[in-house]
Amino acid sequence: MTVKQLALPELTEACVRLGIPGIGLWREPVQSYGVEATAKLVRDAGLTVTTLCRGGFFTTVTDLDDNRAAIDEAATLGTDTLVLVSGGLPPGSKDLPAARHVIAEALTELAPYAAARGVRLAIEPLHPMYAADRCAVSTLDQALALAEPFPASQVGVVVDTYHIWWDDRAPAAVARAGAQGRIHAFQLADWTTPLPAGVLTGRGQLGDGTIDLRAWRQLVDAAGYTGPIEVELFNDTLWARDGVEALAETTRRYIRHAL
Amino acid sequence: MTVKQLALPELTEACVRLGIPGIGLWREPVQSYGVEATAKLVRDAGLTVTTLCRGGFFTTVTDLDDNRAAIDEAATLGTDTLVLVSGGLPPGSKDLPAARHVIAEALTELAPYAAARGVRLAIEPLHPMYAADRCAVSTLDQALALAEPFPASQVGVVVDTYHIWWDDRAPAAVARAGAQGRIHAFQLADWTTPLPAGVLTGRGQLGDGTIDLRAWRQLVDAAGYTGPIEVELFNDTLWARDGVEALAETTRRYIRHAL
Repeated sequence: MTVKQLALPELTEACVRLGIPGIGLWREPVQSYGVEATAKLVRDAGLTVTTLCRGGFFTTVTDLDDNRAAIDEAATLGTDTLVLVSGGLPPGSKDLPAARHVIAEALTELAPYAAARGVRLAIEPLHPMYAADRCAVSTLDQALALAEPFPASQVGVVVDTYHIWWDDRAPAAVARAGAQGRIHAFQLADWTTPLPAGVLTGRGQLGDGTIDLRAWRQLVDAAGYTGPIEVELFNDTLWARDGVEALAETTRRYIRHAL
Repeated sequence: MTVKQLALPELTEACVRLGIPGIGLWREPVQSYGVEATAKLVRDAGLTVTTLCRGGFFTTVTDLDDNRAAIDEAATLGTDTLVLVSGGLPPGSKDLPAARHVIAEALTELAPYAAARGVRLAIEPLHPMYAADRCAVSTLDQALALAEPFPASQVGVVVDTYHIWWDDRAPAAVARAGAQGRIHAFQLADWTTPLPAGVLTGRGQLGDGTIDLRAWRQLVDAAGYTGPIEVELFNDTLWARDGVEALAETTRRYIRHAL
């Protein structure tokens, strides 16, 4: 998503050239290119698919068929992790606890299906500014509480700096998640202001904002996480640039601010 | 601030006509009209000043003179409560705990000065989307932790639905704050999306959004709060309308959704 202006063949080629060993993919471009074709493209380039994004939106869809399809796609792509953006309030509702209950029930139904296909569900807490319309799970503590009824091999969490950097309880939650083996993905983005209208496309390039990215990386390291580190930027300015150049800059920024 | 298009004489007159018994004031219009003159205007109308907004921004100003001036103004206006927006990260900093430490130190210096003038300091946690640039205090738990070293008569918190509605820990914090006598102000605004650019002027008219305002009012009631209830909307659409009509609508919405 960081360089969504690149088609998948350009993206894989650029990753190889820049020494990036894996890619987190989103469903839409994968479906357009073809799931099997994408799997072959990435595999032939010697890369891995780190995660597939995303399942979820449990609170506004009536059945879980599309989530099962997402799990199938993750399995076909050869990634072990499906990121879940759980969904906000259904239309007309003002009841966040009820929304979280619906999310818990959906996990109960999906976790065995995913486990049977070798896919882990990774609950991503989203910044509280998305609580109404995208994700009623706003903190790492909440995400962990939703995951804990399941084996860690089935359900875990996503640690994304953009969403949790403000939270003074998040460092302890990272440690707890790590000790349980539930950090299923680690994503970096920086926090910059002013936020754009709609607050979706203002994630800062690494180093441009207020998040101590290396400190978070060290926390996640200390929690025992050894998996891939993803950079996930939704950024209008970055998307307007040449994709390969934007990816190269992101790589340099990653080395400078997080490695 | 809800109807900042109204000059203070129009505002007091409209409040009297609508049966609104008190007004929360902001410093800028008060200073323009004159602090003593405002105090007399409001008093002669038979109204009270519920709170003065705002002191704070401790993390980006080097001395506390302006905060002492705000306390003096609150005392002159006859309100017992100065709302504090504590400030975000200083330029170049990525250290939220350090910012919170600076805030705690400023409180230590200001609390006795305020107490001597009969003014309580009310720490307002702001929504986490303001953590970088406006307020490093993002949760009611954090605000309470900052207040607890002081007598409740000196330092308390602001419960503002807009800032805390997403937080599953906030109801318990409201109860604790109430038990300690530290709810020094209670403010209502609704949460509507999409947020506007800069995320400052999109607070929803009561009933237009996703917050169960009456439930929060009942929580605050149950916590023992008996003080005024303020409606604080920053809303471009509301500001563009006739101020008296906007205030009348706000009164109707308050009765319908919170009373």
